[in-house]
Amino acid sequence: MNERDKTMRNVSGWAATEPGGPLKPWDFQRRDVLSEDVAIRIEYCGVCSSDISAIRHGGDFPLVPGHEMTGEVTAVGDRVSRFAVGDKVAVGNIIDSCRECPACLAGRENWCFAYPTLTYGGADRKDGNPTRGGFSSEYVLDQRFVYALPEGLDPAGAAPLMCAGITTYAPLRRWGAGPGKTVGIVGLGGLGHIALKIAHALGAEVVQFTRTMDKAAEARALGADDVVLSTDEKQMAAQAGRFDLILDTVGAPHALEPYLAALAIDGTLCMVGIPEGNWTVDPLSLIVGAKNLAGAGSGGTLETRDMLDFCAEHGITADVEHMRPDQVNEALDRLARNDVRYRFVLDMAEQS
Amino acid sequence: MNERDKTMRNVSGWAATEPGGPLKPWDFQRRDVLSEDVAIRIEYCGVCSSDISAIRHGGDFPLVPGHEMTGEVTAVGDRVSRFAVGDKVAVGNIIDSCRECPACLAGRENWCFAYPTLTYGGADRKDGNPTRGGFSSEYVLDQRFVYALPEGLDPAGAAPLMCAGITTYAPLRRWGAGPGKTVGIVGLGGLGHIALKIAHALGAEVVQFTRTMDKAAEARALGADDVVLSTDEKQMAAQAGRFDLILDTVGAPHALEPYLAALAIDGTLCMVGIPEGNWTVDPLSLIVGAKNLAGAGSGGTLETRDMLDFCAEHGITADVEHMRPDQVNEALDRLARNDVRYRFVLDMAEQS
Repeated sequence: MNERDKTMRNVSGWAATEPGGPLKPWDFQRRDVLSEDVAIRIEYCGVCSSDISAIRHGGDFPLVPGHEMTGEVTAVGDRVSRFAVGDKVAVGNIIDSCRECPACLAGRENWCFAYPTLTYGGADRKDGNPTRGGFSSEYVLDQRFVYALPEGLDPAGAAPLMCAGITTYAPLRRWGAGPGKTVGIVGLGGLGHIALKIAHALGAEVVQFTRTMDKAAEARALGADDVVLSTDEKQMAAQAGRFDLILDTVGAPHALEPYLAALAIDGTLCMVGIPEGNWTVDPLSLIVGAKNLAGAGSGGTLETRDMLDFCAEHGITADVEHMRPDQVNEALDRLARNDVRYRFVLDMAEQS
Repeated sequence: MNERDKTMRNVSGWAATEPGGPLKPWDFQRRDVLSEDVAIRIEYCGVCSSDISAIRHGGDFPLVPGHEMTGEVTAVGDRVSRFAVGDKVAVGNIIDSCRECPACLAGRENWCFAYPTLTYGGADRKDGNPTRGGFSSEYVLDQRFVYALPEGLDPAGAAPLMCAGITTYAPLRRWGAGPGKTVGIVGLGGLGHIALKIAHALGAEVVQFTRTMDKAAEARALGADDVVLSTDEKQMAAQAGRFDLILDTVGAPHALEPYLAALAIDGTLCMVGIPEGNWTVDPLSLIVGAKNLAGAGSGGTLETRDMLDFCAEHGITADVEHMRPDQVNEALDRLARNDVRYRFVLDMAEQS
């Protein structure tokens, strides 16, 4: 029997049927497991601001968002060795890649030269179908992009690690956050609050930049050693030369120069938020002090496994607000207004 | 006797008396040597494009440009231990700094927190006078910023090492140019041609980007393993993902995205040319592939000594065209048109 002829699996999800949404209940099918596939009953799925961008600007409707999942294995293909039915697992924003390019061979599939298959809004490399995300009852994907959920990590709080977690963990590791280093975090949202926890656990001195001192106490509770009001020019000027690394998680357009000025010699401002327009950079703000403007986003299988181990070891999960799937539009609206502390997760098992 | 009352030294130089020049002969005085000072008869002084900027935009006229000098020690103060009359020496674009800040204590005086004293257009930290550059017969400065010229380095070709050399050497070292790395050089002028030689000597695979294939043979002779025509979109597209480091020496405004696209994962585009406007950067050009846009310029005493040793060991000097001091305006005009292979040096000893 041709593997493609196998029975399909019926899935219920939440989809935008046109740009801008709203999301509505939508039943669709996924393939049954192929030899290397794992089927996962989705228990939790985080709500990421890139879901909002996709709903607004995506081109492939109906669009099922969601790329921060945890759940339980419900079926495995006959050549699946790493997982068994009942295992607790996690899936992030990549579900396949070319597996042949230098990036894939190095376990850095997020930079696959042939472009990775995204969890939704992509074209599945095995069956050619549009990929549909985790705002759904079940996912089917190759075992290579399924991660064992370490014991002790709360599955709801762990879901956002699969995007917000890895996106901040990777640059923090790469740019040497650790003892003796001073790390700034710009933005205290879904990404920022996990970055705070990770940078603190790595042993760095961690400073939260925020536009409202309302968040100061919370930032300290999350691991900040210090809080700087970024709207206060005097406070910002006093930061000059302080930071080895500043991780900027804010997607809204904003000036980079105040943060570049806060860097030490050889320091790095790493951007993980994606604004809609271009960045403008005063050349001298990089040249004086030999500074560095860097980008980062997501992670490959190697560093994602490493991130999960690290978070398990240090008890790091996202602070989440639970929502039922039928509250997904409310969650998206509130996220668009930054009204969440700090990540919504949809309890997909409560699918009504 | 107050040290400041000592006899002054008469110096003949070339100065711009108003923005835009031209340079004219101008006699002025420098202080006689203080205890830690060295007086140097200038033999060669390189002509740098920043001299053109200073003449056009500087605010402190008469302005004597020149910050790439080699010459011979003619007098030393009573506490000068490192130099004696007759020594061959070199001076770059910094002649003093605060000496107390972390940057100075680390030998990275070019990033002095209190701003280094520039060789011209600054205010001397000892006598308060405006600093006057190396387009002159003699310089007087503290021994700390005087460098022994290693034996075997031609003094004319070595002069440009003091700015063009260190400005390219520092980022090539910092970003790991060496065996197994592929390094691109953008621009084949004063900085670019030295960068080629240094990157080649460091053991990297070196690729010259140029806007005219006329320079291809010359670039290969200088150490390029490959030459890419940056105006050819097809050739540029073929570079995608190739470079660990691209050193961009071009000050004129130009798009950065084609070079960012040519970087490998984690690659760095390091800018040492300073355009008059801002850089604009497409966020995804940095985020996809975790790339970096870095700046660099000049060097402190530690890496400048290291650079001179390296260049002496590998026989690296600039390719220079000799000009008499009375040809300085011709040299500046031709440099402004990029009509030089690859650096003018003024033979200051031929002062007429």
